[in-house]
Parts: sequence; C-alpha cells; structure tokens
Amino acid sequence: MTPYTRRVEAAGLSAYTVYNHMLLATRFQSLEADYWHLCEDVQVWDVSVERQVQISGPDSHRLVQLMTPRDISKAQINQCFYVPLCDENGFILNDPIAIRSDETTWWLSIADSDILLWAKGLATGFGLDVQLCEPDIFPLAIQGPKAEELASRVFGEQVRDIRFFRGEWLEWRGTKQFVARSGWSKQGGFEVYLNDPALGEALWDDCFEKGADLNVGPGCPNGIERVESCLLSFGNDMDFGDNPFECGLDKFVSLDADVESLSLPALRKIAGNHQKQLVGLIFDEFTNFDSYRIRDNGVEVGEIRSQCWSPRYECQLAITMMNREWLGSRSSLEHEGQAASIHPIPFAKDVLESRGRAA
Amino acid sequence: MTPYTRRVEAAGLSAYTVYNHMLLATRFQSLEADYWHLCEDVQVWDVSVERQVQISGPDSHRLVQLMTPRDISKAQINQCFYVPLCDENGFILNDPIAIRSDETTWWLSIADSDILLWAKGLATGFGLDVQLCEPDIFPLAIQGPKAEELASRVFGEQVRDIRFFRGEWLEWRGTKQFVARSGWSKQGGFEVYLNDPALGEALWDDCFEKGADLNVGPGCPNGIERVESCLLSFGNDMDFGDNPFECGLDKFVSLDADVESLSLPALRKIAGNHQKQLVGLIFDEFTNFDSYRIRDNGVEVGEIRSQCWSPRYECQLAITMMNREWLGSRSSLEHEGQAASIHPIPFAKDVLESRGRAA
Repeated sequence: MTPYTRRVEAAGLSAYTVYNHMLLATRFQSLEADYWHLCEDVQVWDVSVERQVQISGPDSHRLVQLMTPRDISKAQINQCFYVPLCDENGFILNDPIAIRSDETTWWLSIADSDILLWAKGLATGFGLDVQLCEPDIFPLAIQGPKAEELASRVFGEQVRDIRFFRGEWLEWRGTKQFVARSGWSKQGGFEVYLNDPALGEALWDDCFEKGADLNVGPGCPNGIERVESCLLSFGNDMDFGDNPFECGLDKFVSLDADVESLSLPALRKIAGNHQKQLVGLIFDEFTNFDSYRIRDNGVEVGEIRSQCWSPRYECQLAITMMNREWLGSRSSLEHEGQAASIHPIPFAKDVLESRGRAA
Repeated sequence: MTPYTRRVEAAGLSAYTVYNHMLLATRFQSLEADYWHLCEDVQVWDVSVERQVQISGPDSHRLVQLMTPRDISKAQINQCFYVPLCDENGFILNDPIAIRSDETTWWLSIADSDILLWAKGLATGFGLDVQLCEPDIFPLAIQGPKAEELASRVFGEQVRDIRFFRGEWLEWRGTKQFVARSGWSKQGGFEVYLNDPALGEALWDDCFEKGADLNVGPGCPNGIERVESCLLSFGNDMDFGDNPFECGLDKFVSLDADVESLSLPALRKIAGNHQKQLVGLIFDEFTNFDSYRIRDNGVEVGEIRSQCWSPRYECQLAITMMNREWLGSRSSLEHEGQAASIHPIPFAKDVLESRGRAA
C-alpha cells in the first residue's frame, strides 16, 4: 500500500506489478487507451516505487561520486542528474535521478534494485561518515501535454518557471513539497516528492478536482510511450551485465573527469571496445515472438529487451541488445521470419513519422 | 520467465507476485485448496526466486561472517545454515539459507532484497579478495508428506539419508544436482538447486510422471501453511527496521562468539533491551481489518505483519510486531472490536489443536 493506493484502485486500475518491493500500476483502461490519453491530456501517476535513497553527512558527496562514473562536482542544489550507478567492473547497478537537496544531502530516486544496500556496504567498507535511509517520500507524477497547466493550478504559477530537471520547494496546503520538472515519459510534466504520506489522498484529489476540465485521469508509466521514446528501463533494457556504453549512455560517463569513481578506471579501459550495443528495431508486422533471442545461422547475436506495437506509427518497435561486431554497419535483420530495420536509439522522429498514420 | 514458467502456467497457476525481480506463483486452485493438498500429498514448487548469491575466493568466509551475527565457523560442507544478515546497527537486511559449497565458496539462498549489492559494496569497501555473482541456479522445491517418496523416485533412495538442512550432490540424468532437505513449509521436503536452466522442464516433468499415484500437484509457498507454522517472511513479518531479537531469532545471534561480524557489537548492546517483539495473535472470528495498526487508547502499540484464516484450526492467526513494554505480560488484546489471545511464536501445537475441528 502506498499513500495513493486507495485512490488508484478506486480509479479503475486493471494491472499491477511489483517494483522496489512496492505496488506499481501498469494499466488502467488498456495499454493503448492509456497511451493516447497520456499523449493528449494529463495523467496523475502513483510512482511511490521511486524510492529515495537519502545520503547525508560530510562524506555524502564522496559516496555518490564513488557510485557513478558521471562527474557530479558541478551539481547545484535542487538540480536533477541522471546518473548510471556502476560497479568497479563498469556494470550498471541502477540508473536513478540524483537530486542534491542541500550541501550535504543527496536523494537517489531509484529504479528497481536495492541501492540502499550497495550504498550501505560501500559506506561501511570505506568507513564513510554518512547517514543512509529511505525516507517517507512518495512521488506523484503529473504527466502529459496539459501537465503544466494542471500543476500550476495545484502549486501556483511559479511551476511554469521550473526548468527541465530542476526542482523547487513549493507551498501546498501549508506544507513545503519538492516539485521537479521530470518524469518517466516524454510528454512533459512534473514529479511531486510528497513528504507526508497522510497527505497522499488530498494531493491526488486536488489534482483531480482542479483538472476535471483538462480531462485528467489516472495513469502509470506506459509501455508504448516509453518504448517509442526509448526511455530505458533498468531491469528490462539494461541490467547488471551491461555497461553504459553498451546502453548508449556514453554522455553520462565522464571519462576525462578527475573524480574518485569506482567504475571510471574500468570504463576507461572499455571505452570504444564494448561488445554489445542497444539499438532500435522496427518490424512492419505485429508478431508475438516465441523467443526474444535473435540468431543468425543458429548463433545468438542479440536479444530483444522490450517491445511494443505502436498504434501511432503502426509498426512494432523493439529495444534490442545486439552483438556489436555482428552489427557492424548492418541496417536490417530477420527474426522468426519477420524483417526489421535497425536504428540508433532513441528512434529519430522522422524515422517514426515516415510510418503509419502519422505519415 | 524461469526454466519452469511454461509448466507452471500450463499447470493452472492463478496468481503471481514478483520476488527478487522474478515471477513467483502465489496460488493455483485457491489458497485453501492448495493448503490441504500441500499438507496431505506432495507439491512441486518453482522457487527460482530464491536467487543464489555466490561468494567465492580466499576472503569468502570472512565476508559471509561479516554479514551475519551467527557464528558460521563450524559450518560443514553441504550444510545449510539459516543466517539473519544484519547491518552495523543490527537491523535485518535479509534472512537467507547459507550453504557452504566447498572450502572457499558459499551460496546465500536469499529472500527478497538485493544482497548481491550489499555484498558487492562491502567487498569493494573492505578490499576483499572475493568473486561475487548470481549463478544460473533455479531451485525447485518438492514439499509435503509424500515429498520423500517422490524425491526418492526421482533422485534415488539415497535422498532418504539426507538429514534436515543437509544436502548432497546427486546424479540425475547424467548431471550432478545439489539436493537439500529444506524448503519453505513445515510439511517436509527437499529443494533441488538445478544448475542448468535447459533441464527445468525435464525435471518438472520427471516429478509429475513419477508422482502421479502420489497425487503430486503444482504448488507454491502457501500463505496459510506458513503463518500456521510461523515461517517468517522477510519483507512482511520483518524488514530493514527490525533486529533479530525483535523477531525471535535470538538463537541465530552468537553473542559470545569471537568472530568478526559487522552487527555483533550493536546487537550485544541491544540484547535484552529491544523495543518490539513479534508475537502470534489468535482471533476467533474472521475479520477483514481496515487497518493493521493496533492501537490502545489511540496510541499505536503494534502492527499486524501477516495473517490468515486457518481452515484447520478455524480461527484467524496473525503474526504481529508489538511494543514490548506495552506487551508486558498481557495475554490478550482487542483490535477493531475483535478480541485476540497473544502467544509466543511459533504457535504451540497444543494451543492450535485446542481449537476448531482439530480439537
């Protein structure tokens, strides 16, 4: 149960998954109906599963930098940073949004693995002066093209001035809540880091009351929208066996930075020589594949990690990890008798728009 | 997907949960029908979610001992050890079965939290010479009063000689598989640590073919049986905020041992002064409680962590964390208008048997 669960269930949830040991809605009406609604109006999402790993104390900055190959030395207060977290071999352990809350406090807004335990192990082993916890913070996302309008009605006009991946502490019903322009869709919107579970239903209700004329509805991360947008899902598209280069996250690896990071030494050696590459595939036809393993003359050369049928572009999109040497300059492949074109991710807008009813 | 998923689904699974990022069946026919079948015949469970965190190398023993307050210095090869894992404050992070595979290799057969990450952090921070991984091992449990008969037909008569919490490497179809007398029920049985996912369906089928006359059926950890037996569930009955004394796990804390354990210093201070206590409650009537928080004159004094209606004893059983000072020598309480008697856990057999149709 999260502070919003009663409202989520009353709003007509039709499927859950478990993420970070908590319930995450995956569907309300249908994947496709939810998709169009997200792209056209505004949705309210219970993303309490985005647990915050709070790292505070004199060594907090050092610990966060140890955990990620991205140089965080220029992080400003209330700024959001996408940070792959990697072990000393360069493998990805999670890909949270890191938020610097104040001079000595960081929040890692995590994907689905227990980063608190890794941070705890490192802090204990290195003898760092930090305090670690998962505070009672339950993010609620407001996503969709009308999200700014709705958020401004709930939190005031100042939300319009919040830049992408920045946050502000805003007043709401006599409390201060951290509101950031972020969220796991490309439709725009905000995440509210609600810090009092007792206020969950009131916040949900406030959004629905003030958004009635905006056609506000319940929602959740959408499997179609996020594959079209190539928002990578840790645990699906990438996992403990992949490094940032393989996942196209090169720009979050600060190879030249003079910082103390566990993974940078290994990643400097790997740079340019990684074995696999995440790419996009476009199939013309919808197919329920028997296997996600892609073979060439019986040899496995890749693996489909996520896929969806895109109702907008009328094709099947797949995020796929391919053997990089095999990939070479190939531009197409065949899987279970279906031809697919191969694309860098994220899919270019013109590539998608040349297809289907959007064309 | 696990090596058994296709068989589990074909066998009539009716509900899943997610555990250690994998699918775990929670129900086939109904919770109650599954319960009687488990207690009377034999079931085959896909417990692939019991991931093995494998710790090998010269410092493996040191790392495992750092992680647990239980003295593991006398562990023999192929012996299973129930080990609470605790941080330096004494809080429980997981409660795996630790198996010493050989002189320098341990498997931690984990409950639902990413212990690989904690072990990785400690190993990195302390600079230990260990290799860590989650190997491709997919446990299949054979549980129920007829489990020994079935296991002997599959693996040979030598399974009968395996003592409780011991294992042996047994031959099966030309491979060697680790088979231990263990499992998450009190109905007796074995866990097979299958080390080749390609053999999953063959092993499943072998159990079903050889057990037809034993009324073998598909199963999973059962919410009634495990509450009656007080098999504690990490993430439900206990979590990161509890220590072993509070959970009645005193005998797994080796207070007097001269071993290097992260949590022992804190636990030595806490011993005898812990604040909460896990106890059992018995309610006469079935009630769907509005809240799991137990209050006395408005003050919260406890929390129901798990509960079930027992069809055998015709009462509602609850595993409940109570304020220890409030508890004192109280033998009963009231929650939402229902009276309950308070009992140490596990429930004594005569207490349960004095009730319901078993009486």
